[in-house]
Amino acid sequence: MRHISVRGQSMPLSPIRKLAPYANDAKAKGKTVYHFNIGQPDVETPEEMLKVLNEIKTKVIAYGPSQGIPEYQDALVKYYARYDIPLTRDNIMVTTGGSEAIIMAYTVCLDAGDEVLIPEPFYTNYNGFATATGVKIVPITTKIDNDWEIPAVEEIEKLVTPNTKAVMICNPNNPTGKVYSREELSKIVQLAIKKDLFIFADEVYREFIFNGEKHVSLLSFEEAKDRVVVMDSISKRFSSCGARIGAFVSYNKEIMKAALAYGQARLCPPTIDQMMAVKSADLDDKYYETVVGEYKRRRDAVLATLKEMKGVEYRVPNGAFYIVIKLPVKNAEDFIIWLLTDFDVNGETVMLAPAEGFYSTPGLGRNEARIAFVLNEEKTKRAMNVLKLGLEKYLEIQK
Amino acid sequence: MRHISVRGQSMPLSPIRKLAPYANDAKAKGKTVYHFNIGQPDVETPEEMLKVLNEIKTKVIAYGPSQGIPEYQDALVKYYARYDIPLTRDNIMVTTGGSEAIIMAYTVCLDAGDEVLIPEPFYTNYNGFATATGVKIVPITTKIDNDWEIPAVEEIEKLVTPNTKAVMICNPNNPTGKVYSREELSKIVQLAIKKDLFIFADEVYREFIFNGEKHVSLLSFEEAKDRVVVMDSISKRFSSCGARIGAFVSYNKEIMKAALAYGQARLCPPTIDQMMAVKSADLDDKYYETVVGEYKRRRDAVLATLKEMKGVEYRVPNGAFYIVIKLPVKNAEDFIIWLLTDFDVNGETVMLAPAEGFYSTPGLGRNEARIAFVLNEEKTKRAMNVLKLGLEKYLEIQK
Repeated sequence: MRHISVRGQSMPLSPIRKLAPYANDAKAKGKTVYHFNIGQPDVETPEEMLKVLNEIKTKVIAYGPSQGIPEYQDALVKYYARYDIPLTRDNIMVTTGGSEAIIMAYTVCLDAGDEVLIPEPFYTNYNGFATATGVKIVPITTKIDNDWEIPAVEEIEKLVTPNTKAVMICNPNNPTGKVYSREELSKIVQLAIKKDLFIFADEVYREFIFNGEKHVSLLSFEEAKDRVVVMDSISKRFSSCGARIGAFVSYNKEIMKAALAYGQARLCPPTIDQMMAVKSADLDDKYYETVVGEYKRRRDAVLATLKEMKGVEYRVPNGAFYIVIKLPVKNAEDFIIWLLTDFDVNGETVMLAPAEGFYSTPGLGRNEARIAFVLNEEKTKRAMNVLKLGLEKYLEIQK
Repeated sequence: MRHISVRGQSMPLSPIRKLAPYANDAKAKGKTVYHFNIGQPDVETPEEMLKVLNEIKTKVIAYGPSQGIPEYQDALVKYYARYDIPLTRDNIMVTTGGSEAIIMAYTVCLDAGDEVLIPEPFYTNYNGFATATGVKIVPITTKIDNDWEIPAVEEIEKLVTPNTKAVMICNPNNPTGKVYSREELSKIVQLAIKKDLFIFADEVYREFIFNGEKHVSLLSFEEAKDRVVVMDSISKRFSSCGARIGAFVSYNKEIMKAALAYGQARLCPPTIDQMMAVKSADLDDKYYETVVGEYKRRRDAVLATLKEMKGVEYRVPNGAFYIVIKLPVKNAEDFIIWLLTDFDVNGETVMLAPAEGFYSTPGLGRNEARIAFVLNEEKTKRAMNVLKLGLEKYLEIQK
């Protein structure tokens, strides 16, 4: 019997989800598991959006246009106007989650064998999309010791080969929580212009900035206007992860034409979820302030405990809702499994994501883990306490 | 400025959707357009499913498991049991529409450059998915003169090359309406075993059979058990095209493992749509009989007028809800555009899908068109009358 394809065999299991069986075992044994491993917030989906579902009167759940229903495209135009990004419907393809926007960009802009530069650690699923589409990710290594900063243009240039066709950046960053300034993003833009690259900008955490700074979208660099594709999603912004609504945004007409062709093949994004998402355009500053305030309190609760944990290194994350911490252990994954299988505090334990899967350079991140601030303040405090006690115990028995 | 990728440039615009601007123009001018071109039924989504939306109480639209929510996986197990296909959750990946199931099969089982044999004419979007994934479709030409039958195994064998890795079949067939018997499917199974190929079975129209015969699933061939991937969808079966819920079904463990990895990268299919789809498992025989009866009446209404149309060739379609007709014109697309731009009967006109895009052999199907039986009986009669008068007029002015 024939084996599956090479790319099928190479598809990586998600490092965020692969430890799920250990968590399930722990739960089956009666333990409470605090999920710091996955970016599934417990924040409520806005009532205005949920209400749409309850009031739906349509008798046929029909296909929508491949580029998205016009009402939601218009809602997105209105949303981007908040950030002084002028768009028309022609610049927007509504996608099935941010995930599809990434697959679309890799497929439409890159051929198999092409290379995309991405600062590592990076959102681990970029690997899966790259494997599926035959694209090669070339990591631009960033380091905790250097506050996860992007290296100088001259440094990145050394990574460029004749196959390099794009550079991709996630801002605010998953998993580091780094928020890039206009100056730092300029490095990426300069590089892209000099080497004639596309710029893929994953900006799904646009609002999640905790130090009062304004988000800088790659779409705001006039000199690179036609190079940029923004991948967006309502998942985190409106706590609608399961709604699978994202967007693929570009000023480049050639890109948008091909994206439409791709979009026509897969017919359309989910209709009902789009109807729900339309209402997100009506949410005002107060909504965003409340949500960002909530995540800031969670982050501060994480930091308060981290400060007390001996041997743990980290940098204060100013955005998204993640932090990568360096643990005084050999292998973070072993520690995380141990937390699930062998440790609890009054029946409670905690789950993190091993950070190794967020790196593409072999060996990097092995003693690092990602924490997602997705639990409310009280639970965050309890979970962090479990983590602190767990690490102490683990270090003790490792001696 | 760099151009997009070769595959991006090669993505075909959907021949089903590409004439939409002409239809929009016609509507803007006040014409009513009967849409026979797209498989969007006007049949109502079952009330039991719609009710789920109105009663949703969840406060957070959260990610579900990558393989689908367990309740819906179980609903699918129950559904397939109706057809004596015994499955467990491990054989099922819930997908974002049948579309994603096809992309998944092409990605997980085939590498770029691999070839898949498909009887043509075939569902045109297979082309888009093949272009996106680098897979080459090799057509097995079937002909109206031969009632769209699959050629003998010895004939198909001649098309097999060292790169051939799979054979794909849509049964009941879109666009021909052909329902393949066990004997005909056996040809595909024999070929697959002899040449060590995967079998991709698009069975989204499983219930839509009008001559009382039972559907034969490729999953029911014991001798090919591990070769088969079924792509499925609730779009037509439960008139839920916009819900984007499909399934990827296989007994092959290697395939299912890779499908899960692919699924983890894109996180999950839409949560709310799955909750709605759970209720489809409760629909009984009466539901299916009613729906199939409705489509049969529509088909019969189409056939009644076709019979009166001089020079039009067709075969009675026993399944799905499509028919391919051969028109006494040079170019069916020109005729369809003309219907939209230059013709109407009391302000009404009709839109078909040019069939050329359903063929992969250049030049075939140029004088053919696909009709989708998606309008109720009365509208179907009106639309067919417009088509009949339109063709008469067109032939007259072409003289």
